[in-house]
Order: sequence, then structure tokens, then C-alpha cells
Amino acid sequence: MTDIGIGIVGGGYMGKAHAVAYAAVGGVFETALRPRLEMVCATSEQSAERYRKAFGFARSTDDWRVLVNDPNIQAIIIASPQETHRPIAEAAFALGKSVFCEKPLSATLDESRAMVAAAKTAGSINMVGFNYIRTPASQYARQLVADGRIGEITWFRGEHTEDFYADPKTPPSWRTKGDANGTMGDLAPHMINAARALIGPISALCALVETVHEDRSGITVTNDDQAQMMCRFDNGAQGHLFFSRIATGRKMGYAYEIHGTKGAIRFDQEDQNAIHLYTMEGPEAERGFRKILTGPVHPDYLPFCQGPGHGTGYQDQIIIEARDFLRAIYENRNIWPTFAEGMEVNRIVAAAMDSSRKMAWVNVADY
Amino acid sequence: MTDIGIGIVGGGYMGKAHAVAYAAVGGVFETALRPRLEMVCATSEQSAERYRKAFGFARSTDDWRVLVNDPNIQAIIIASPQETHRPIAEAAFALGKSVFCEKPLSATLDESRAMVAAAKTAGSINMVGFNYIRTPASQYARQLVADGRIGEITWFRGEHTEDFYADPKTPPSWRTKGDANGTMGDLAPHMINAARALIGPISALCALVETVHEDRSGITVTNDDQAQMMCRFDNGAQGHLFFSRIATGRKMGYAYEIHGTKGAIRFDQEDQNAIHLYTMEGPEAERGFRKILTGPVHPDYLPFCQGPGHGTGYQDQIIIEARDFLRAIYENRNIWPTFAEGMEVNRIVAAAMDSSRKMAWVNVADY
Amino acid sequence: MTDIGIGIVGGGYMGKAHAVAYAAVGGVFETALRPRLEMVCATSEQSAERYRKAFGFARSTDDWRVLVNDPNIQAIIIASPQETHRPIAEAAFALGKSVFCEKPLSATLDESRAMVAAAKTAGSINMVGFNYIRTPASQYARQLVADGRIGEITWFRGEHTEDFYADPKTPPSWRTKGDANGTMGDLAPHMINAARALIGPISALCALVETVHEDRSGITVTNDDQAQMMCRFDNGAQGHLFFSRIATGRKMGYAYEIHGTKGAIRFDQEDQNAIHLYTMEGPEAERGFRKILTGPVHPDYLPFCQGPGHGTGYQDQIIIEARDFLRAIYENRNIWPTFAEGMEVNRIVAAAMDSSRKMAWVNVADY
Amino acid sequence: MTDIGIGIVGGGYMGKAHAVAYAAVGGVFETALRPRLEMVCATSEQSAERYRKAFGFARSTDDWRVLVNDPNIQAIIIASPQETHRPIAEAAFALGKSVFCEKPLSATLDESRAMVAAAKTAGSINMVGFNYIRTPASQYARQLVADGRIGEITWFRGEHTEDFYADPKTPPSWRTKGDANGTMGDLAPHMINAARALIGPISALCALVETVHEDRSGITVTNDDQAQMMCRFDNGAQGHLFFSRIATGRKMGYAYEIHGTKGAIRFDQEDQNAIHLYTMEGPEAERGFRKILTGPVHPDYLPFCQGPGHGTGYQDQIIIEARDFLRAIYENRNIWPTFAEGMEVNRIVAAAMDSSRKMAWVNVADY
Ligand SMILES: NC(=O)C1=CN([C@@H]2O[C@H](COP(=O)(O)OP(=O)(O)OC[C@H]3O[C@@H](n4cnc5c(N)ncnc54)[C@H](O)[C@@H]3O)[C@@H](O)[C@H]2O)C=CC1
Ligand SMILES: NC(=O)C1=CN([C@@H]2O[C@H](COP(=O)(O)OP(=O)(O)OC[C@H]3O[C@@H](n4cnc5c(N)ncnc54)[C@H](O)[C@@H]3O)[C@@H](O)[C@H]2O)C=CC1
Ligand SMILES: NC(=O)C1=CN([C@@H]2O[C@H](COP(=O)(O)OP(=O)(O)OC[C@H]3O[C@@H](n4cnc5c(N)ncnc54)[C@H](O)[C@@H]3O)[C@@H](O)[C@H]2O)C=CC1
Ligand SMILES: NC(=O)C1=CN([C@@H]2O[C@H](COP(=O)(O)OP(=O)(O)OC[C@H]3O[C@@H](n4cnc5c(N)ncnc54)[C@H](O)[C@@H]3O)[C@@H](O)[C@H]2O)C=CC1
Repeated sequence: MTDIGIGIVGGGYMGKAHAVAYAAVGGVFETALRPRLEMVCATSEQSAERYRKAFGFARSTDDWRVLVNDPNIQAIIIASPQETHRPIAEAAFALGKSVFCEKPLSATLDESRAMVAAAKTAGSINMVGFNYIRTPASQYARQLVADGRIGEITWFRGEHTEDFYADPKTPPSWRTKGDANGTMGDLAPHMINAARALIGPISALCALVETVHEDRSGITVTNDDQAQMMCRFDNGAQGHLFFSRIATGRKMGYAYEIHGTKGAIRFDQEDQNAIHLYTMEGPEAERGFRKILTGPVHPDYLPFCQGPGHGTGYQDQIIIEARDFLRAIYENRNIWPTFAEGMEVNRIVAAAMDSSRKMAWVNVADY
Repeated sequence: MTDIGIGIVGGGYMGKAHAVAYAAVGGVFETALRPRLEMVCATSEQSAERYRKAFGFARSTDDWRVLVNDPNIQAIIIASPQETHRPIAEAAFALGKSVFCEKPLSATLDESRAMVAAAKTAGSINMVGFNYIRTPASQYARQLVADGRIGEITWFRGEHTEDFYADPKTPPSWRTKGDANGTMGDLAPHMINAARALIGPISALCALVETVHEDRSGITVTNDDQAQMMCRFDNGAQGHLFFSRIATGRKMGYAYEIHGTKGAIRFDQEDQNAIHLYTMEGPEAERGFRKILTGPVHPDYLPFCQGPGHGTGYQDQIIIEARDFLRAIYENRNIWPTFAEGMEVNRIVAAAMDSSRKMAWVNVADY
Repeated sequence: MTDIGIGIVGGGYMGKAHAVAYAAVGGVFETALRPRLEMVCATSEQSAERYRKAFGFARSTDDWRVLVNDPNIQAIIIASPQETHRPIAEAAFALGKSVFCEKPLSATLDESRAMVAAAKTAGSINMVGFNYIRTPASQYARQLVADGRIGEITWFRGEHTEDFYADPKTPPSWRTKGDANGTMGDLAPHMINAARALIGPISALCALVETVHEDRSGITVTNDDQAQMMCRFDNGAQGHLFFSRIATGRKMGYAYEIHGTKGAIRFDQEDQNAIHLYTMEGPEAERGFRKILTGPVHPDYLPFCQGPGHGTGYQDQIIIEARDFLRAIYENRNIWPTFAEGMEVNRIVAAAMDSSRKMAWVNVADY
Repeated sequence: MTDIGIGIVGGGYMGKAHAVAYAAVGGVFETALRPRLEMVCATSEQSAERYRKAFGFARSTDDWRVLVNDPNIQAIIIASPQETHRPIAEAAFALGKSVFCEKPLSATLDESRAMVAAAKTAGSINMVGFNYIRTPASQYARQLVADGRIGEITWFRGEHTEDFYADPKTPPSWRTKGDANGTMGDLAPHMINAARALIGPISALCALVETVHEDRSGITVTNDDQAQMMCRFDNGAQGHLFFSRIATGRKMGYAYEIHGTKGAIRFDQEDQNAIHLYTMEGPEAERGFRKILTGPVHPDYLPFCQGPGHGTGYQDQIIIEARDFLRAIYENRNIWPTFAEGMEVNRIVAAAMDSSRKMAWVNVADY
């Protein structure tokens, strides 16, 4: 058993989630590589120090360069805002270090392209934080589709809907500024990733992106709060994606429906431990969507609990990510989803923004 | 109490439903006008006679002109295939008779325009068969939206999905021929009507219509089996509509989700006696979609049953339609949805077909 | 095609439901025997006359003897309060007429015994109004159990819960007086019937019957508003039944869960068109309760609608009952559920009331 | 920030869960007391050593006395079989150490009594492992009930149902031997605890406990696989509890329904992040069970995730337990549920076993 020094940039929502995940992952998955929480970085010295104590890191800093350069740190988790992802990742790659970067990979497709190139040049391990696709249920859905259990795919509908900005009176914040923090930039990536993972690459799309509430407390909102696109996948399937931060009543509406020539799958992250499967088998009188509760027979469930239906939660997804990242480093081979996947997701976002501006279908390959 | 002679053209799926509805409606709604089942018409003498006996009509015929011209018949129900709707309706209007026509109003927008004009010229009562919008649940949803209970509408998603052609091996039939019998022609009208009734007119749309299974048992399918469109409503709301006869697992997927600035509504016809309402009121900890079971306090429920949650079914929708039609005749004033609504639905269908051909956004006003 | 004169005693909740059912049943099921609505009876001349006009009967009366004795009436539907059931039924049997009696068969086990004896002596067709067991879903559940689809039954849980008296401030009425109108007398029969139909006879039970809200607006409530019993079926299965009119939030909580050695079934009348089936077949990873929507392949569905998932409602159950009653008369053979079933249900009620008084297990055979 | 040495007896299902929980709890809850994983104990040296490496303990042993006596260990977690609980706990208390013991507290009421006495004599911190009552949803349900949000409680129905022995062909194991491992001994405690926590003490009960499958692969099963009881709570509410390991289709059927004079609550652990609340407020047309997704505004949710509806899982419950235990030690005051609660649960189990033997109602106070 070897250990590895971990540095996390950011101690907020995701910084904490990763800190806890690295504390727990060794025990959960009995990983070959055991993480040591070396250093946490935040914007101020005080907050960094607070995170250090709270999460049990050895040291703290308010300068991510210090963290990246620290010789005891081999693996870096980027859990700071989108615009910081690129410089941190590039600096780490320059030192040959491994990098896990939160989604979206970066604020723009161009930045992501540069990051992928840098990772390639360095030959470094790189991974992007698409956690939702890693639940036991969604991993199982991927398996079912890949194994042809529901036949050839004819339709995919995905959404990522939440309602934290549904009330027009909710005041503006950094979230209401800049494309990277809008619905397309910030919410869409998870579900675009899911669409790609479940069905495959998207070849063409036609999008409609809009800012419904343009004024919040007298201040102009400069990014989108709801967006949709029709799309065509490389394999011919048709699809639709919807993203919203004003979807009243929806809290974690990462949901998809897949129709195939032999069956169908439905999933909603708001009930993340159930996957609904329909198959065209057996007597017609007995057919129906069956609600399958995840359990030890499904991917990555058993390490969390021996009982079926007992359920995993949000934090567990981050633990699965940590296992994947540690395994990639230990085995010295990249494991999906790498930066390349993050970049492909950015490409769809870029194509969609352009499609909406032009009010026209666009080919993804043109971006 | 007056009575009125009813003639029904067609004794199949819907012909029977209307025959039963007119037998039951008087008792259910204690209508002022009481229907007499005068005559039924079908393509052959034998089948017409069979329907007569089965449903309790006084007479039968294999010629709809005989039925339309019969002096004992004042009200005509058209429950025969789309291409027959126009001639029958026009002949009836020419005699000043009242006409209820099944959806879609006709096979094409042009035909529907002519039918609306004929109804107007005759000054006849006319109604089109959008039954799903008349369930207690959907009537209540309309009320909630109209009353502003969920605020200003920001998003509407509707679908009408079934799976009777999901299996590529299902052989072709008249259903796989001709635009009027395809997904857009045949399935879409109900949900387009719902979108209009719930939210309002659609101003622009961009559609993607396709035939997924082009070959069935060696025979070419000539109409679409799945279609979607993004759309913009006159009131500014954004929307998406999806129609499919290959939506594996879906049996009666007439479903919609509406987001507003103060709440949200979700409905699925597969559980037609429940409407899900979310409101942004009360303590946040207590917010959630509430599953409201229809009951005596909801529209048109009490006449069917005094107990809440006891439920209405498909046949009851047709009884509600019969009540509306009889009332319109009795009060001699048209009641929504008239032929004009049927025509507006055809307009959206026509616009969508054209949009899909052009792969471009279109303005509905241009059709 | 022959016709038959129908007389209905009562024009309230159920009187109306039966009147509508007999108007519709011929067309729905193409019955060999066609009902004529001859006469309706109610407590006053005015109300009887009102019902006559509303439901389309030929004549009305305020004396049930007139109705029973009328030579044009061969079949009598009793839809008046429990205490009237026995005299009406016995008078009808004395004339050799057929009788359909609403549940509960009568107010007491002794009365029911007398009624069963009278029916036997007369050799008359007799049927009791257990409508819920006749939905397509519950008929299908019976079939699944009878066919051994879920193996040997190990557990049955049934409830009939509503909340019309949940609010302690709801004023008293005739419903809060007399055992026959209490939870055990009035609500329990449907689910006791279901337990017997699905699993078989009950051999022993231990019940707890209580009046939770003993005072309503200063007036003493003299019957029970909630009751439960543990029970043992003849076939060895264990069970539990619960009845309540104060089950806050429940509107039509006629629900059951059945566990067997090979599978399980769950059903809730609040979503009456779905039956949930679990089987221990196939790979464990794919097992789950499947939600089967009733459709043309299920019992007594097709006559109402050709489309699966389109759904039947409360009124349709009464139409199915009417079909059964007409068929029994036409074929001159009794069809389940006869008065004997009504009496067996009364027996369980009597045993439960006694068990609760004694606070002890009792054998059903002792009643 | 102080730290504390933790020793865990057992490295199986629950031993692992606690090991992971103590690795994660500091970061999740920023606990004042930080755990050090000092030693793990299992039945053999090899397995103990395997657990040590897997979970990151400093040392391992195959003798729980070594662990209990270790001066670096102040807090002991007992996660070994029921019959080992008492000697380990008593030895720890003799040294004044703090003990967290998995449920059931012990194999019999007598043992539990002794353990409670020993804890009291020692003045030691003690806690029992009822984890399910600590989910955000169930904590919130407790709050709602305690605050009178659903009025006075009239009915409680609870079940703990799983199906790991539903198949009669599943071979016997240690689980099919001995009362402590049967349905009443092993499964019932969680839900009895829930009933007590939500509603209050149980005063009387009448139970039916049985072994449905008495023979497995030719070997006699010596404990129960299904059991139910009717009960009366001290506060007058009526209730019913059901426990089963042969409840086909149920995986984690820890579920309850509570009716009160102002509302109702429904919960099912198979969808552990949702709580269903009904209140008798507002217009009747808008009433229904609302599905509330747990989020930052609910108890103990925010430390796991900032987003509502993102969900917690099984492992998170054990982390909440760890937080509670550490807090009790740090603040040197016992926190519910202590051994006394474990003993009260044993009392109900003992009363139920006796009631079933006698086939009679019993008073809990008599045990
Ligand atoms: N995978 C998922 O489910 C989620 C992913 N995210 C992603 O995680 C990233 C972080 O988001 P949150 O944790 O929500 O943000 P947050 O605002 O909660 O935390 C951001 C942290 O970054 C630190 N930080 C900011 N600028 C910095 C700089 N220049 N140098 C060093 N530290 C800096 C802050 O001090 C803070 O600790 C974002 O890329 C976001 O898109 C966010 C939420 C969920
Ligand atoms: N509102 C709803 O839920 C539904 C509406 N429909 C609509 O109802 C109409 C009828 O459809 P179905 O009942 O499903 O068809 P069907 O094939 O079951 O019955 C058609 C009937 O029309 C008669 N018919 C055909 N051509 C005729 C002619 N030239 N003259 C006289 N009778 C003729 C046939 O003999 C047959 O009785 C269609 O417009 C369809 O779109 C159909 C199903 C559901
Ligand atoms: N199967 C089911 O789902 C239901 C069955 N029922 C049963 O149906 C029966 C009737 O109940 P509801 O319709 O709810 O009552 P209701 O109060 O709505 O109607 C009772 C009718 O009986 C008439 N009536 C009363 N006493 C009479 C007498 N001595 N002679 C002639 N007519 C008399 C009244 O005028 C009234 O028209 C009861 O046995 C009840 O238990 C009631 C509701 C649902
Ligand atoms: N709260 C909950 O959700 C659950 C609680 N439990 C409870 O947890 C306890 C342990 O059960 P599981 O983890 O399922 O059992 P298990 O069989 O998975 O593990 C038992 C562990 O105890 C060790 N052990 C056995 N005898 C021992 C002895 N004399 N000295 C030292 N170590 C010994 C074994 O080596 C093994 O590591 C039981 O009391 C059980 O009722 C079990 C499952 C779930």
C-alpha cells in the first residue's frame, strides 16, 4: 500500500466534498493508493486555515501556486471557479502532476482545448468531475444500453433542472453573470456528458437559450437561465436536452428517458437509487416499467452497503470519483471521463450558444 | 326536457365510445337535451347493422349521406377516418345541422379551413373531439394556470407518446400510410390542443419529424413515427413538444409539465386522476409537489362520483364531450373547442411539417 | 336480444351510479339482455320524480313495495340504506325476482343469513355490490394469484381508508350512528371481500375496533371510526386488515399488498389503472416492481377502450357489475359475488366486533 | 481540537460502515473531537489484519479484550454479533470507557437490563445503533410530529420488510437460528425504535410471530421469518407493526404512515430522501400528499451537500451516528438513543414473543 499527497484548490461546496471523499475512499474501496490530505487552498489565509482544520489537511495556503508546487503533493483537485481551472491545471501538468478538475472543464471551448493539449504534452493523468454519471443507477443504465438490452436507441430526453433562481425576486449574484455560470455553462455539462455516455456523440443540434428574468433587483442578469436543444446523435438517434435554473419545484432534476427498439429506461436523480426499466419481453399483460432499486449486484454499490435498496447519496458519488482518480494514477493510465470528455462537453455548449444566436441548426463538428 | 336525434358515422373505436357516451350522458349530467340514438353508419351494411344492435341505435346505414339527410337526426358525430371528415361535415352544415367531429379536424390545414368556413356560413354548432383536455384533472390545471396560481408561465413541456409501433417487426397498416395517420397528423393534435389551452397560441416553432422504422415487413412506411418541436408561445413562454408511436413502454403518455414564477404543475394521463402541484408558499422545508387526487371539488367530477379519489376513466371524457355538445346545441352557442380550434391545431401541424423539411424555425402566422 | 325491466330503490350516490350503468351497459358489453329503466324509488314522491327525470326512468314511486310488485320489473337493484336491504330483497324473492343488493348485504349477520336463505328458497338470482374487486386491475390480480404466478401466499395486507371524518370538527350525521354505518359496518366489507377473493376464507382473527372521536359538536358518536385486525387465512397465510374513515390524506385507500414465495403484488385504488407486480425471475439486477397499466389484454378492459393505459374509472366498475347481473339473469345461474359472499363478509365483521369487545382471538367458524 | 482513539469490534457489514464513518465524520461535521482509528478486532488474526489495512486502522487484534483494555482507546464501537454485545460493553464500562453498540442492544431483555445498569454504574457514555431514525427525512418527520404539525396522532403503521429469505430454497445460515437473529430479534428493533421515537411508548400489544418456511434444505429453521403486532401507544394512538424477511420484492422496507387530526406523514426508506406530508390546510381542491425532497433546510442534510434533492445514503446515516457519539463523549452527556432505548426496544420484542405464544394481548409494563 502506497500513499499519495493530495492538494485541493477550493474549500467550498465541492472542495469539502472532495476532502471528505479522500478521507473516506480508502476504507470504502480499499484502494491500492491511499490519499494523504496535504494542503487546501482558498482565496484568503483565514478561510484556507479554517478549511484545513475542518477537513483535516496538514497545511493550508491562499496561493494555488504554492499548492501546485509543493513536493509532497502529487495529485491536485481543482474545486475553484471555472475561470481558475485552466491556469491551475496547466501549472500542475508542467510539473507532471495528476489533475482532477471540477466540471465544467473550463469557461470556454478554447481554454479546454488548451488544457487537453497541456495534459497530452505532459502525459499526465487527468480527469473531469462528472459525478452524476457514476451513481450505481446511471452506471447500470450505461451497461444496459451498451449491452443492447433495450435494443437500438431511437430517442433520448435529458434534463438538468433546478429551481434556485425560479423566484424572480431572488437577488443577483456571481451566478447571474458570465456565460460560464449560466444554465448552459454551469448546469448543462452534467447532462450533456450523460447524453454522450449513454447514447454517444452528438452530431448536430438546434438550441434555444434565453434569459427569462433579465432584471434582478434592478441589476441586469448577463447569462441564461433556461435553455433547450433538439439534437441528432452520431448513431442516428434523436434527442432533446433541457436545462433550467428556474424550473420551479425541481431540486435535482438530472433526469433522462431512453427509448429503444426492445425496451426503455427512465431515471431521475431526485430518486437516485431507482432505475426504471421496461422490456418488450414476456406476456404483454405483465409488461410495465419495473422500478429497480440499486443493490450489491449493481456497479459500485456493494462497497457502500451490503443491503439492496439501502441507498447511496451525493457524497458517495464523489467517493467513487476519488476511487477512479486514484486508480488512474496508480495504474498510470487515464480513465474516462478525462479532460477530453470535458472538452467535448464544452464543444456542445459552444455549438448550442451559437445555434441559439443564429436560430439555426448547426453541426457540432464545426466547433 | 327535449330530445334530439343523434347520428354517428363510424362504429369503431370512437364510434362506440360516442354511442355509449350518448346513452349515459343524460343520467350523468341531467342534460336539458336528451339524445336519441337514431342511426349509425359504417362502411358495410353488415357492420353498420352489427353496430346498431350492439349500441342500441334505431337504424343503420352504409351511406353517410343517408344519415346526414335523415330528418330525425339533428346532431351528427363524425367518428370515421380523417379523410371523410370534411365531406360529411360540409353536407351536414349545408342542412344547418350540428356537427361534432373527431380529431384531427381533417387531414390537412386547407380542408380544415374550408370546414371552419362552412360552419360559419351555416351558422351551425360545431365541435372537435379533444377529449383529454376535458378530464377533471386537466380542466383543473387550466383553471390553476388561468388564475395565475403558478404565476407567469416560463416553460411548457408536453408529450403524447405511445408504443404501438415501437417494435420494428410490427407489420404495416393504414396507420403507416399518409401524413394524416402519422405521429404529427394523428397523435400530435391532442397535445398541441393542450399546449394552446393551457398556455396559449404558439407563435414560432422549429420541428424535427422523422420516420425511424422506414421498412415494415418489406413495405415502406410513408409517415412519421416520432417528432419533436421547440416552440415559443405568444405570451413569451418557451416550450417543447414531443410525439411518438414508438416510445417503448409508454401507453398513454399524454403528459405535461408547466413551470411558472410561483409554482409548477405536472400531469401524466397514465395516472389521469392525479395532478401534481408545487407552490412557492409556506416554509421551504414543507415545499414539494403535492399529488392532488381529483374529487367532487374539481371540474366535472361530482356527476360521476361523490367520493374523491374514486376516479374517472377514458369513457367518462367522452361523456363530458357529449354534455358539452348537447349544451352547445341547446343553448345555441358554440362552446370551445370548436372547429376553429381544430383548424389552429392543423396549422401548427402544417408549420411543423414545413419546419422539419426546411430544418429551420418558422412563424406559425405564415401558415 | 331480449330486454328486461329494471327497478332501482334509491336515487342517491349509488342509485344514480346504477341508473347510469344500466343505461350504458348494453352498448359497452353488447349484453344479450337489454335493460329498460322502468321505475325508481326514493323516500319522497318529489325526489323519486326528480330521479326519474334525471336518469330517464319511465316511472317513479316513494314506496318500494310498488316497485317490487310491478309486473314490468324483473330485476331489482337495492341502493338504499343498509336497514332497508332485507325487507326489499325478501319481498322480491317472494315473487321470484332477481335482486342485486348494494354492500353491505345487510346491517347484521343474522339478517344476511335470512336473506341468503330467502334467495335459496326462491331460487332467485342474487348478487351483492362489491364493485372494487371488479376493476380490470383487481380482476387481473386475482388471476395472477389463482394461477400461482406469485407462488404460495405468505402475507396479505389490505386497507380501506378514507378521511371524510378525519377532522374532529366535522359534525355528526347518520353516518356516525349505528354499527352498520361505522367503519366495520360500512367501509370494511369491500376489503374483506377482496381479501377473501384474492387469498381465500379467513379462519381466525383478532381485532381492535375503536371510536377515536367520540364527541362531534357535543353529540356522541355511536359507531367506530377506525379498526384493524390480524388474521389467519384457511390456506395458512397471515394477514392484516385496516379500515378507517379518519385516515387523513387518504381518499380512496382501497389498497393491498400480497407476498408470495415467487413474487408479490401491490395495488392502490387511488391509482386504479396500475397493478404492481414483482417476480423472482430473471437476473437479480433487473428485478423490481413493475407498474403494469391495465389495457385490452386485461379482464374487462377492452369493452371500455381499445388503448392500453387510457384507463377506466369508478362508474365503469358499476357497469361491469351490471353486465354480471344481467348475465346471471340471462343464463339463469348465480355469478359470484352472490348474497352468500355478502353474508360471509358480514360474518367476518361480526367476528371482528366480538373479538374487539373480548380483546381476544376468535374463530370465524364460531359466528 | 482534541482527538480520541477509536476501537471497533467487528470488521464486517457494520464494522466497515463505522470505520468509514469515523474516517469521514470529522470533515463532514467539523466535529470538536477528531477520531483516530486505533484498532479493529475480528475473530481471526488474518481477518482482523485484513480489516486493519483495508480501513486504515493502526493496529488489529483477534481478542476484543485487548482492544477494550488498550490505553489509547477511549471509545469502543461494538459491531459484532448480538451475543457478544454484553460482555464487551460491560468490560468497557468497567474501565469507564464510552460504548456505541450496534442494534439490537443484546440478544435478550435480561442482558440489556444488565448492560443499562452497568452503563449507569460506570457513568459511561453509551449509545445504541439505530441509524435509520437519523436520516434527514426521519428526523424531520419526528420534528413535524413533535411540533403538532399533523395534530394529535390517531394511527401509526410501521414495517421493516426485506426479502433476503423470501425464496424457500435459500439455504439456512446462522441467520435462521436463534431468536436474536430472527425477524423480531434482528429486523424489528429499528422500526420499534421508530415507532417510539415518532409516537411514544407502547403500552399494550398483541402479536403474531411465525416461521413460514420451517425447513430449508432439510434443516430446521429455529427462528421467525415474519411477525406482526397490533399495539396501543401510551398517548392513546393505535398502531400496527409488521416485520418480515420474506416480503418478496421489498429490499429496504423501513416504512411508516402516520395519521393525525391535522395531517399525515408517509415515508419509505426505499426512497429515503423524500418525505410525504399532507395537511388539512388551504382550499380542499389543492390538498394532497406533497413529496418533500430533503435539503439544506432539513436536519443534518447541509453538512453532506449544499443542494436540495441531491440526497444522502446509507453510509451517511452512520456518519451522523458517529457525530452524535463523538458529541456525547465531548460534551460528556448522554444523547438519545442510549442503551436505555435499546433496552426498551428489547422489552417490546420480549412482550411480542410472549403475546404470540399466548395468542393474547399483553401489557408492556409486565416485561
Ligand atoms: N460536480 C458537481 O456536482 C458540482 C461542481 N461544481 C463546480 O465546482 C467548482 C467550485 O464550485 P463551488 O464549490 O460551488 O464554489 P464555492 O464558491 O463553494 O467554493 C469555491 C472555492 O474556491 C476558492 N477559490 C476561489 N478562487 C480561488 C483562487 N483564485 N485560488 C484559490 N482558491 C480559490 C474559494 O476560496 C472557495 O473555497 C466550480 O467549477 C463548479 O462548477 C459546483 C457544484 C457542484
Ligand atoms: N379522441 C380520441 O381519443 C380518438 C380519436 N380517434 C379519431 O376517431 C376517428 C375514427 O377513428 P377510429 O374510431 O379509431 O377508427 P376505426 O377504424 O376503429 O373505426 C372507423 C369507423 O368508420 C367507419 N367508416 C370508415 N369509412 C367510412 C365511410 N366512408 N363512411 C362511413 N363510415 C366509414 C368504419 O366502418 C368504422 O366503423 C378518426 O378521426 C381518429 O383520428 C381515434 C381514436 C382515439
Ligand atoms: N359500492 C359502493 O361503492 C357504495 C355502496 N354504497 C351503499 O349503497 C347503499 C346506498 O347508499 P348511498 O347511495 O350512499 O345513499 P344515499 O343517501 O346517497 O341514497 C339513498 C337513497 O335511498 C333512498 N331511500 C332511503 N330509504 C328508503 C326507503 N325506505 N325506501 C326507498 N328508498 C329509500 C333515498 O331516498 C335515497 O335516494 C348503501 O347500502 C351503501 O352502503 C354507498 C356508497 C358507495
Ligand atoms: N444498524 C444496521 O443497519 C445494522 C446492524 N447490524 C448489527 O451489527 C452487528 C454486526 O452485524 P454484521 O456487521 O452484519 O455482521 P458480520 O457478520 O458482517 O460481521 C461481524 C464481525 O464481527 C466479528 N466477530 C464475530 N464474533 C466476534 C468476537 N467474538 N470477537 C470479536 N469479533 C467478532 C467478525 O469477525 C466480523 O468481523 C450485529 O449486531 C447486527 O445486528 C447489522 C447490519 C445492519
